[in-house]
Amino acid sequence: MDRLKDTIVSKGKVVSESVLKVDSFLNHQIDCDLVDEAGEHFFSYFKDRSVDRIMTVESSGIAVATACARYFRKPVVFAKKQKPGTMTGDALTTQVHSFTKNTDYTLTLSKEFIQKGENILIMDDFLARGNAASGLADLVETAGAAVAGVGIVIEKGFQPGASILESRGYDVYSLAVIESLENNRVLFK
Amino acid sequence: MDRLKDTIVSKGKVVSESVLKVDSFLNHQIDCDLVDEAGEHFFSYFKDRSVDRIMTVESSGIAVATACARYFRKPVVFAKKQKPGTMTGDALTTQVHSFTKNTDYTLTLSKEFIQKGENILIMDDFLARGNAASGLADLVETAGAAVAGVGIVIEKGFQPGASILESRGYDVYSLAVIESLENNRVLFK
Repeated sequence: MDRLKDTIVSKGKVVSESVLKVDSFLNHQIDCDLVDEAGEHFFSYFKDRSVDRIMTVESSGIAVATACARYFRKPVVFAKKQKPGTMTGDALTTQVHSFTKNTDYTLTLSKEFIQKGENILIMDDFLARGNAASGLADLVETAGAAVAGVGIVIEKGFQPGASILESRGYDVYSLAVIESLENNRVLFK
Repeated sequence: MDRLKDTIVSKGKVVSESVLKVDSFLNHQIDCDLVDEAGEHFFSYFKDRSVDRIMTVESSGIAVATACARYFRKPVVFAKKQKPGTMTGDALTTQVHSFTKNTDYTLTLSKEFIQKGENILIMDDFLARGNAASGLADLVETAGAAVAGVGIVIEKGFQPGASILESRGYDVYSLAVIESLENNRVLFK
């Protein structure tokens, strides 16, 4: 997606050889036109997969998942990193390690929002080592549903997330794949 | 907003006299058509306020803020409840007490995403005692910007949030105001 790549180059900040900061348009401030176009791209790619729901994880995946869901006219469901006090029914949970924050957290999802046999499209803003997306896929499979695909806005192609998800049999579609952040420069694949 | 009220009645769950669970359409699973209509209502009401950005707090406010921002064609900025490891520049912070979770948290926002003199529209899914919205307003005022208004999807009219915000001089526009949750029934104002 050219507009996304242009925005990454003009507004992204390379913090280190493994960290790209995109907080001015994706995960702190949100460029709604950009996110809307991303949602449309995901819809074009996944529209024939009989998607029942779009699943993401709070917080940064919510905007793009919602933008995409508008095209599918299907609900978004977002897994929580903390179990809410009002979540009283049965919940699906899985442990995830965050390398960015160097902490573990429990992804939690009410059982009622994924039904057996459904096709669930997983979506997130970033894919690095794939821990969050793998955790979402674990929840989907535990519920007896199927992963219809994985839509990622920015993939760090130099980290193994996509390979790990593909080895589980999932189709990973990333709108921008970064080959390298070396020498303070974004190089796309 | 009639459709919202109908959905609250048909899909909301009264947990107690002060707690309404709306996780099947607003803050765990998201009904994107409903949220889109909510965004349009907020735009209709606030469209003459020269809004520069729409501000919310993660996670439940993001979907409706993004839906509304599409009409304004302005960016969303969401305050974080935990400071991200990649947030390196100057940040605005304020302490907020959550009655729902009975914890305190620090709202954090990068200074670069609110500029002095801007008009900021605050938006959230729920208004009860007004702590989160007041915290957002504190950040806006600390930055030398102005609160253009406060858009709320569901207001608990039996709690003082709206009065507190109005006493600070803000225009609070709620799409559904709940008068009471007594006798396991939702009564609108």
